[in-house]
Amino acid sequence: MVEINGSRLEARLDQFAAIGATPKGGVNRQALTEGDRHARRLLTKLALARGFDVFQDQVANLFIRRRGRYDDLPPLMMGSHLDSQPTGGRFDGALGTLSAFEVLESLEDASVETERPIMAVSWTNEEGCRFAPGCMGSMAFSRGSIPGEWYEKTGSDGALFANELKSTIESLPEAPVRALGFPIYAYVEVHIEQGPSLEAEGIPVGVVTGIQGTRWLDIAVKGQTAHAGTTGLAYRRDPLGALTAALAQLYHNIMPSDPDARFTVGRISASPGSVNAIPDEVMCTVDIRHPQPERLDEIEKEVISAITYTADLQHCDVDISRTFEMPPCTFNQNLQEVIIAAAGQLDLEWKGMLSGAFHDALFVNRVAPACMIFVPCHKGLSHNEAEYVDSLHALAGCRLLADTATRLAAYGL
Amino acid sequence: MVEINGSRLEARLDQFAAIGATPKGGVNRQALTEGDRHARRLLTKLALARGFDVFQDQVANLFIRRRGRYDDLPPLMMGSHLDSQPTGGRFDGALGTLSAFEVLESLEDASVETERPIMAVSWTNEEGCRFAPGCMGSMAFSRGSIPGEWYEKTGSDGALFANELKSTIESLPEAPVRALGFPIYAYVEVHIEQGPSLEAEGIPVGVVTGIQGTRWLDIAVKGQTAHAGTTGLAYRRDPLGALTAALAQLYHNIMPSDPDARFTVGRISASPGSVNAIPDEVMCTVDIRHPQPERLDEIEKEVISAITYTADLQHCDVDISRTFEMPPCTFNQNLQEVIIAAAGQLDLEWKGMLSGAFHDALFVNRVAPACMIFVPCHKGLSHNEAEYVDSLHALAGCRLLADTATRLAAYGL
Repeated sequence: MVEINGSRLEARLDQFAAIGATPKGGVNRQALTEGDRHARRLLTKLALARGFDVFQDQVANLFIRRRGRYDDLPPLMMGSHLDSQPTGGRFDGALGTLSAFEVLESLEDASVETERPIMAVSWTNEEGCRFAPGCMGSMAFSRGSIPGEWYEKTGSDGALFANELKSTIESLPEAPVRALGFPIYAYVEVHIEQGPSLEAEGIPVGVVTGIQGTRWLDIAVKGQTAHAGTTGLAYRRDPLGALTAALAQLYHNIMPSDPDARFTVGRISASPGSVNAIPDEVMCTVDIRHPQPERLDEIEKEVISAITYTADLQHCDVDISRTFEMPPCTFNQNLQEVIIAAAGQLDLEWKGMLSGAFHDALFVNRVAPACMIFVPCHKGLSHNEAEYVDSLHALAGCRLLADTATRLAAYGL
Repeated sequence: MVEINGSRLEARLDQFAAIGATPKGGVNRQALTEGDRHARRLLTKLALARGFDVFQDQVANLFIRRRGRYDDLPPLMMGSHLDSQPTGGRFDGALGTLSAFEVLESLEDASVETERPIMAVSWTNEEGCRFAPGCMGSMAFSRGSIPGEWYEKTGSDGALFANELKSTIESLPEAPVRALGFPIYAYVEVHIEQGPSLEAEGIPVGVVTGIQGTRWLDIAVKGQTAHAGTTGLAYRRDPLGALTAALAQLYHNIMPSDPDARFTVGRISASPGSVNAIPDEVMCTVDIRHPQPERLDEIEKEVISAITYTADLQHCDVDISRTFEMPPCTFNQNLQEVIIAAAGQLDLEWKGMLSGAFHDALFVNRVAPACMIFVPCHKGLSHNEAEYVDSLHALAGCRLLADTATRLAAYGL
């Protein structure tokens, strides 16, 4: 069992949190900005100082490689990302990337020779807040190419993706550029939970069984505006009456009847928006999540059917469109077992859990066995400058990663 | 029975609709604008040409007076308003004002001497769209003074009320300014229904029994924003889930169980308004109407109680404030009977009905017996350039007004 250097991990987290630090203690280090380049240069410098190989690919994914005894075997890969939300926290992405690097350093400190090479990766633009979509780096890696339309994308700050990508790659001349995509043996990612359950249940690590699928719907219900005072019930075609009846039923049914389901309405509005006028149109968004594709279908049907039904009762018209879809992913079972065995040896309490949010592991899972280790974050806060991870939890996650990595590099799946 | 000149009434409606005419066939003649002054000058000119007395008061209410046999008796008054919404119709207000004037002209044509003097009035700023509140003229008349704060009001176009009022009064030097408020015997106002029921039921006139009271509530429900994917049901404090549960119940209960009740939510929103975030706060407006004050209280309590209950279930906080209140009014029963008797003699089918919207008659009713006669408007459309009244319906309303007025001027209540 390799010994993790907890104070070094903590110092590294502080060091990287200083790059793009915000006054409120968070981080603004959006993808492909100068801050992101700064963080990449720092990680490269640290890696080269330890004698690791460093290279990047055409989408600026940054790889650090520690040689193995059988160095031509497909490497075991660990990592996450270094970019952040505009008012992001210190741990989202950085914890997984720096934990992976800490494992490499600890192996080096202990002069452990692994059978396979072991790598740490920082994927490009996981957040997707400057350039959409998120997870560009892991997505391009898993498909082996960059979708052509990405180059034309304009960032939230007006910058062109193609230019920012090129400048980012060129700002790291120490890291040669290699072709996108290469065989890997397995991938393990440490990440903060970004939800409250581990903290609430007092469990230090989660072994992630998969990532929920997501569907987004835009819903418009159209009726007829009319005077709130002069229009009796029989003459109303009230789209908000129809929509709230359906939503109340959906809130009542979907999540309480299925613990794996998520149903969220984040946006709602009515036009013309007069206090004394029945709306002529109301719109809302719906976010549906579920780990099983067939349940996503069923829930989407239930939403459409409930809204169509109540709209019909009010003689309203309905327009529903699916604006986003991400199929669920199930992480490799054997890989989960290795992590669980390592947790057992470390005497770490763990639970199996789904990830509600996307992660790079979702895309890597398309080309290699992948899995994730979650650590608790305070009150579930994330994408928030107040994001906080207890250093004991960070250390536990890193230890579990190290133990998992050495098992995988030695014995395999 | 005095003979109404239907083609003259129609020509007058056309003549006034030309003042502030919009390209889509509506009228933009907002209170105290040049268009409003133009309409007041035209009505004054027509009145002076018939030998009627014309005067105004300090809030620019415009009065036209035809002498009676006992000319010092309190006058019978008829009328409505000449101002419009920005994209208003040709009939809202103008029909009642010009019908009143038509009654005076018809009496003059027929050389009928009434016992009491009979007056037509055009109240200032009924609509309240340029300067709030609406019904300024009738409100000031009924209280005998202008609330001091009105003078400081800034219009939707930036104009100062005090200046616009002064200029409007000064633009009509033919009409001497008299003191606000004077005794009147009774007041009858013809108006378009602004709702669909008369047309739908094929009834040419409504005898208005009263005006619903109104309450407006601003409702905020506060929970906690969290990630749509990572936050399980047990960790949600979803204010929109709470609000829709309450609204669905209120839509289901209030109007279906009480045909006189009106419950409308015209505005709703959620913040931060992200498709993949549970809202931290949702707000909506509620418009409640009822003819009975105690039912207004009960419905308001029901709304507050339902929202508080569902918010508690979701561990959300509630902030409800009453932003507007207008008590209901019941029109004089004897006056209704006179109108009903007149309708009987004219062989006009009628129904008793409530007014859902405010009207000047609501305020006049505070100082004298008042009542209203509604005529159908096509599809209930009003505050809309497509507002339309069939000329037979306009004529029927005017005939009923004439017959009511002559009865009242002769026999009284």
